[in-house]
Amino acid sequence: MNTKNDRRIYLSNTDIEEAVASYFNEIDAMGIEVKREHIDIREGLGRVTSRPVFAKVSSPNHNAAAMDGIMVIAQRTFHASEVSPVVLELGKDFAYINTGHLMLSPYDGVIMIEDVEIVDDNHVRIFSACSPWQHVRPIGEDIVSGEMIVFAHHTIRPMDIGAILSGGVVDVDVFEKIRVGIIPTGTEITDNYEHLEKGKIFDTNSWTFKSLIESYGGIANRVSPVEDTYDILKEAVSRQLEDNHIVIINAGSSAGSKDYTASIIEDMGEVVLHGIAIKPGKPTVLGLARGKAIIGIPGYPGSAYLVFEEVVEPLVRKLQRTMTKPKNLVEVTLSRRVVSSLKYREYIRVTLGQVGKKLIATPLNRGAGVSMTLVRSHGVLTVPKTSEGYEASEQVMVELTSSMEEIQKTMVSIGSHDLIMDMISSMMGTTYDQHLSSAHVGSMGGIMAMKRGEAHMAPIHLLDEETGIYNERAVAKYLGDDFVIIKGVQREQGIMTAKGNPKGIGSIEDIGKKGIVFVNRQKGSGTRILVDYLLKKNKIQEQDILGYHREMTTHMAVAAAIHGSTADAGVGVLSAAKAMDLDFIPIGYEDYDFVIRKEFLQVPAIQNFMNILKSQEFMDQLKALGGYGY
Amino acid sequence: MNTKNDRRIYLSNTDIEEAVASYFNEIDAMGIEVKREHIDIREGLGRVTSRPVFAKVSSPNHNAAAMDGIMVIAQRTFHASEVSPVVLELGKDFAYINTGHLMLSPYDGVIMIEDVEIVDDNHVRIFSACSPWQHVRPIGEDIVSGEMIVFAHHTIRPMDIGAILSGGVVDVDVFEKIRVGIIPTGTEITDNYEHLEKGKIFDTNSWTFKSLIESYGGIANRVSPVEDTYDILKEAVSRQLEDNHIVIINAGSSAGSKDYTASIIEDMGEVVLHGIAIKPGKPTVLGLARGKAIIGIPGYPGSAYLVFEEVVEPLVRKLQRTMTKPKNLVEVTLSRRVVSSLKYREYIRVTLGQVGKKLIATPLNRGAGVSMTLVRSHGVLTVPKTSEGYEASEQVMVELTSSMEEIQKTMVSIGSHDLIMDMISSMMGTTYDQHLSSAHVGSMGGIMAMKRGEAHMAPIHLLDEETGIYNERAVAKYLGDDFVIIKGVQREQGIMTAKGNPKGIGSIEDIGKKGIVFVNRQKGSGTRILVDYLLKKNKIQEQDILGYHREMTTHMAVAAAIHGSTADAGVGVLSAAKAMDLDFIPIGYEDYDFVIRKEFLQVPAIQNFMNILKSQEFMDQLKALGGYGY
Repeated sequence: MNTKNDRRIYLSNTDIEEAVASYFNEIDAMGIEVKREHIDIREGLGRVTSRPVFAKVSSPNHNAAAMDGIMVIAQRTFHASEVSPVVLELGKDFAYINTGHLMLSPYDGVIMIEDVEIVDDNHVRIFSACSPWQHVRPIGEDIVSGEMIVFAHHTIRPMDIGAILSGGVVDVDVFEKIRVGIIPTGTEITDNYEHLEKGKIFDTNSWTFKSLIESYGGIANRVSPVEDTYDILKEAVSRQLEDNHIVIINAGSSAGSKDYTASIIEDMGEVVLHGIAIKPGKPTVLGLARGKAIIGIPGYPGSAYLVFEEVVEPLVRKLQRTMTKPKNLVEVTLSRRVVSSLKYREYIRVTLGQVGKKLIATPLNRGAGVSMTLVRSHGVLTVPKTSEGYEASEQVMVELTSSMEEIQKTMVSIGSHDLIMDMISSMMGTTYDQHLSSAHVGSMGGIMAMKRGEAHMAPIHLLDEETGIYNERAVAKYLGDDFVIIKGVQREQGIMTAKGNPKGIGSIEDIGKKGIVFVNRQKGSGTRILVDYLLKKNKIQEQDILGYHREMTTHMAVAAAIHGSTADAGVGVLSAAKAMDLDFIPIGYEDYDFVIRKEFLQVPAIQNFMNILKSQEFMDQLKALGGYGY
Repeated sequence: MNTKNDRRIYLSNTDIEEAVASYFNEIDAMGIEVKREHIDIREGLGRVTSRPVFAKVSSPNHNAAAMDGIMVIAQRTFHASEVSPVVLELGKDFAYINTGHLMLSPYDGVIMIEDVEIVDDNHVRIFSACSPWQHVRPIGEDIVSGEMIVFAHHTIRPMDIGAILSGGVVDVDVFEKIRVGIIPTGTEITDNYEHLEKGKIFDTNSWTFKSLIESYGGIANRVSPVEDTYDILKEAVSRQLEDNHIVIINAGSSAGSKDYTASIIEDMGEVVLHGIAIKPGKPTVLGLARGKAIIGIPGYPGSAYLVFEEVVEPLVRKLQRTMTKPKNLVEVTLSRRVVSSLKYREYIRVTLGQVGKKLIATPLNRGAGVSMTLVRSHGVLTVPKTSEGYEASEQVMVELTSSMEEIQKTMVSIGSHDLIMDMISSMMGTTYDQHLSSAHVGSMGGIMAMKRGEAHMAPIHLLDEETGIYNERAVAKYLGDDFVIIKGVQREQGIMTAKGNPKGIGSIEDIGKKGIVFVNRQKGSGTRILVDYLLKKNKIQEQDILGYHREMTTHMAVAAAIHGSTADAGVGVLSAAKAMDLDFIPIGYEDYDFVIRKEFLQVPAIQNFMNILKSQEFMDQLKALGGYGY
């Protein structure tokens, strides 16, 4: 085992374009062998031709009727006209024929059935002349024997399969599929998904990688997580190198005491580059060994996914000769400020929603460890190394990762968080095939987003200290007459503590006591306003509260902190306490309502949303959650 | 067997949107049962959730280090600073930890390894305080137990697989895949691709359908071609209805004597609609039977593909709850006039090429029977029922069916046809990964396209009757100094006749003789100019030539007409005669050159093209073809 002194602490900070270009140059210089193979074109969808495909036979391969009707000897029809129709005899002057069928001698033209009057079983009458070879498809009209049907290096599409078969070709030459070996590594990583031991983490990246590779048209060879000791990992890499074009090691690509990827590659071949100036994804290792590519990818899902898209996908496509997907860029309005460092290019995932004519982008949580950010995002905002970020309401370009159709089905909610938003979101999906994108920026953040026209709706719970009435004053003060309040739910707020309330917390006064660690909500959230109101009322100073400045953006995050023993108490709703099996000391009910711009009231998505609020199913689910009145 | 009197000759002419909407309404009223099933999420790519997926465990499920470094007791670091560093003892004050690993009691914070100075094996020095829970990922930071990970009716993507596994979920509820039964029918249809009997046509549509269905995420159940007799076909339909959600009958959907689709559907269920106002694709049958959808699709590849995309794809996506692909529309300039009828909406496939800043669309052959049109096109131009078409150089919107990257690799050649264009096209693909799109509009058409800035290049062979010199005068007269001529090849023109020259044709004078059927080239083609020049010189009147007005657009089409016995003679190049095994009576050599705009001379694609003209490989292939000098 390596000691801490063997660590490579310093990584390079190479720009991504330069990193990929120099890696690909080294790969070209070394050469990765991609074999050619014959396949049956009927199983060829998505494969890439290694040679052009030439037709073996013409299509059609005979003169064929192009219409349903009768085949005639053209010369015998030359005198037919509206005023002097000609009668033809079956078997002598004409025969019935259907589209595609062989033209028989001596017939040399086709008259459409619509233009034929049937006299009796053996005679028809026609009213215009048939010119020679009228409505006849000549041999080779579609494909001429020897003609090139598709290029070399062409990715086979459904229509190509039909055309190639038309040319009488069944076997085609294609490149073999690119095989990518995947090695998850780390002692804390497990693929026993039935049971999670304490301190273990599920291996999830390798399955995401596998489906990404399959979606590029490659083959993924995944192994179960490999222990991160040098020799065992090296042995696993050695085995995967045998039968793959590319080997991925995930993780161990950084500078921790167990990050062996770089040294193993150096041992077996060459490290081309270690460290890319991107966030997330910096500690990436690009290497070569035994005529194959080896890539060390960092472990966090956000980093892993980005490096996969930016490095592994282009490499797979390069080797299999398929096109890289063009980026689909759209102009959007940022719903809030984005700050980035000058040290790297940063990739920030955003949700998008169409509000009026604007496409609104809301940046998601930037923790690289947050796989839900990948799931929830509609696009990626790239902040160049030369930029420190963007202001709220600034126009920026975003790469779409969802279809515009999906985005247009998305109702944008910006404001306070409550568990019912997830519930409504799910009901909108199943009942109306619509999505609800909730950004949790607190009630005041929601009010501001509505003012800027960047949300369809803002859930708020803002206590007016003077009147004790929720929401009305805030809407009147900040937004005015163009906005209305849709009544939502009454929900019970309280103090959450660990099961059994081990610290014996009885009321809000206790959270200032010595030895109690509090966890707070972010500024501008309704719950924070409530907390501050209660502290003021009880004359408690914030400096007396340990953890006052630790801010969470959702009730569930507060509950999770208490459940995880990183805090003793926090304020939140009963449903969150129940979900995490916590004790709950009630403070009182508050109004959790929705602000909507008047002009949106008739929009179908908003109508659907209001229907859900009134539905029996919603009432039943509220009852099941507990802690809500309405 | 039905007699001709049972035919349904008249089809309805319903607008496509109305046809699809009323069909889908009937389907909703009847209901097609799509079952739900449990699957392993690791095999779930592309499947559609039937219920939301909720996390079973939190991720991470323990407080974990967010950085590589040391875990510490935060309180003991509070006095550390640059001026008064603090020394910590291993096992007492700190322990080493890697990203993702479990935080052990009593440690409550992490300091990055970069910020630690190693004193000896048991001691480190730190220079700033660690706040409690610094660089610690709390339980549930990514996913909280009970949280919804994906919606119902969500198509599973690679990142969803990782996130769902993170939430401890392996089994998910999805809709079963949509199964589509495919029945190719017609006595002339065969799937013995090794040998094509006279009068037979390969079944190719069913394989294109199969891969289309697979690309939507469905399952195709194809059977071998079924004889088109009423009872046999009905029996096949009956069997396919048992185990599929949708059954496709191809062809037999029109009004020929063997078009049984509509009557079979009527017999087993209900014909919702027969005939849609689109071209190609009119004779489509939309029906229902036994709780399933039955669709009769016309036989021509162009019609079949269009109806599949416009009707079957939306139906499959509707049943499996996936999004329909949004159409990617771009503005293009038409390279030539397009005429359409007011009777239907017409779909015209086009090739696209970037010439300067313009995207140039060249309409392809509109024969529905031409599958190469599907293969070669980059997009579809839709001409509404209310429009009679567009003028050359008009700006129109085209739906892209290829990537812009592929289109930008395409060099646009508009002008005269020669077999070497296919050869060069193939060499450009294999040598430079570039494509050549050739529109065959004849030499004069090419000159005009160059003038309008709609082509990179025009191949021409224009004889000047006065001087006997090719091309120079035409370029000087019509184009001027901004254009240059790149010397191409000298090629031999001659009269092509059937093998053995059965009609004993000796020279151009013989084509005016009685009993000789001629096949001509289109007006504006260099060969047509040569033909007209020779006729004039020999004082032959066009009205004396049978077939003078039958115009083909390529040498190979002329050769194919003679090979297929629909003509006795035509003028063309030796290589075409050889390819079709015809006799050839030489007329003489002509110059087949390339006109290029001067400013394009340094464009890499043009440079590559000129390199190919000079290459040994090209010379060798010319020699093999025969009939060329250079």
